[in-house]
Amino acid sequence: MATEYLTNDPSKSLDQTIRELNPDKVLIITDSNVARLVLPKLHDSEIVRNSTTMELLPGEAQKNIKTVTQVWDKLEELGATRRSVVINIGGGIVTDLGGFAAATFKRGIRTVNFPTTLLGAVDAAFGGKTGINYMGLKNEIGAFHIPSKVILSTLPLSSLPVEELYSGYAELVKTALISDRLFYIRLLEMDKVLNDYSLLGSAIEKSVIFKEEITGADPLETGLRKVLNFGHTAGHAFESLRFRQGQPVTHGKAVAHGILVALILSNMILGFSAVELHHYKSFLKSNYGGSLIACADVKDVITIIASDKKNNHHGEPLFTLLKEIGEPEINREVSLGQLTEALEIYLDLMG
Amino acid sequence: MATEYLTNDPSKSLDQTIRELNPDKVLIITDSNVARLVLPKLHDSEIVRNSTTMELLPGEAQKNIKTVTQVWDKLEELGATRRSVVINIGGGIVTDLGGFAAATFKRGIRTVNFPTTLLGAVDAAFGGKTGINYMGLKNEIGAFHIPSKVILSTLPLSSLPVEELYSGYAELVKTALISDRLFYIRLLEMDKVLNDYSLLGSAIEKSVIFKEEITGADPLETGLRKVLNFGHTAGHAFESLRFRQGQPVTHGKAVAHGILVALILSNMILGFSAVELHHYKSFLKSNYGGSLIACADVKDVITIIASDKKNNHHGEPLFTLLKEIGEPEINREVSLGQLTEALEIYLDLMG
Repeated sequence: MATEYLTNDPSKSLDQTIRELNPDKVLIITDSNVARLVLPKLHDSEIVRNSTTMELLPGEAQKNIKTVTQVWDKLEELGATRRSVVINIGGGIVTDLGGFAAATFKRGIRTVNFPTTLLGAVDAAFGGKTGINYMGLKNEIGAFHIPSKVILSTLPLSSLPVEELYSGYAELVKTALISDRLFYIRLLEMDKVLNDYSLLGSAIEKSVIFKEEITGADPLETGLRKVLNFGHTAGHAFESLRFRQGQPVTHGKAVAHGILVALILSNMILGFSAVELHHYKSFLKSNYGGSLIACADVKDVITIIASDKKNNHHGEPLFTLLKEIGEPEINREVSLGQLTEALEIYLDLMG
Repeated sequence: MATEYLTNDPSKSLDQTIRELNPDKVLIITDSNVARLVLPKLHDSEIVRNSTTMELLPGEAQKNIKTVTQVWDKLEELGATRRSVVINIGGGIVTDLGGFAAATFKRGIRTVNFPTTLLGAVDAAFGGKTGINYMGLKNEIGAFHIPSKVILSTLPLSSLPVEELYSGYAELVKTALISDRLFYIRLLEMDKVLNDYSLLGSAIEKSVIFKEEITGADPLETGLRKVLNFGHTAGHAFESLRFRQGQPVTHGKAVAHGILVALILSNMILGFSAVELHHYKSFLKSNYGGSLIACADVKDVITIIASDKKNNHHGEPLFTLLKEIGEPEINREVSLGQLTEALEIYLDLMG
């Protein structure tokens, strides 16, 4: 994949990328927050100054088929062809939606992603997953469409609220846990990394290189790529439950807590080190707060996990677990009894 | 590609295909004409008898984003997952639209195509092109999504109006011209082939095997696959012009005439045999009628061809031409002068 990893001069990288792709037309898709906070920092880019820019309203509610048709209409208006390029500058909503519109316009035109959130930089802007919400279901409609280039820069990160940084950071920690112990140890010093952009930049870069290897080996998510779901099975269930309860938490916070559940199961089933488990618990407690659920919620969490047909084999949920740090195993069956036990341990540890 | 070529027992082939794919849910998409004329012939298939069937209204006007959302809704209603399968039973409109809905549902679920028109059997059901019309533009929105299986049968062809058979036949002739002289010679006996389903079946099969080779070698249509556009550059222009003039002709008829223009250019530019050119002209005249355009239309045809940005290099249209039968060359630049001359010869020959 032709990703340009970290750049210190995103305006220059963007212009050079577009010169290399040599499109006949360019459409920039962003949202009004990013247009206000980030685009002024890219004023040195000829492409940003001179291209048609489409500003979406911010927020998940915009991530729907109607907005996609508005992007198609804008592309028609521009006279875009199969040689045109869409540049998505924004967080996951912009890259998911802009990516899907581009994936389906004339059966697919090229995209360049410039993620402006930490979560986007380490997750959403990569791997070719594009999509929109439909009938209340997240990313229910979408396509796989690998971007021609992803431009990574810490430049927009200073505009972010700290909660977003923490949310993205959980994805970094997850990637470290499934790939590399030393990387993980470094990330445990969260304050230090978040306050040093060159350190944060290398962490993003390391995470992205690992993810691209995995994605490249399994572009359509049929197997190996499931390692990237580590922490997400319980994490998604926490996220859904809290959303329903009217007390939503960020995706990253939910994943950070989901990782602890996955580590508890890893200890129970694959003998993952109890010492490492407790290290992670301390990191989690000091940075991502106490338990996301109450005792009475355990049953609901299990129901949500068991009804996820994507990760299910003969009624038993499938988890990605760790034998050790850097040694993930996909598709491990977990009985509902084991899952109940793990959630009770989670409540004990975090209560 | 796992296509089942010609089958004598489509009910059995369909059931076996679905058994092998082992989906959790199946949705059949068809239109009301096919449901009336063809589905009764498949009453031996358990899958056809027992699966939820969605009947679209027939016709090009249905091939829009609204119908796609209706298919998505039906899939939601069924509780379809990433392990579900969509079976498209119909002509190009059904396979294009059903294919696109499946390509984008949960980022892509598997499809099985059962083409019920000759054009579908030799063209639309293959190669992974899916799509819908948008803003009056044909197949403007779409995706590449290779079907898991295409079931080929001559069984539905007896329900077809003769005009549709002739239209599909032009695609067979085109494939023969770019691939194999003996196959082409055989196809020139059109009455004989159309009246012998075992002969027609082998011709379909031969055409499909050749196309799959080409498509497999160039799935995203970046180069080689352009050989399949042979006859289509002028053919599309004829089709558009006649449509605008309120005197529409079938796609196949337009392509049959477009092939003659391509052969004239092949003779002028690549020295294609004049004898073969006149053979084809006689075949065309006796089966597909006289000239599709008048002298006064030449300018409009050239304007349409020159504005096709997909097949254009520095303002000169690009054609797929033949050196000899079976020896196509893609991306041959044709000057507007040469094109004018070729259209005048076409008018002379067909007038």
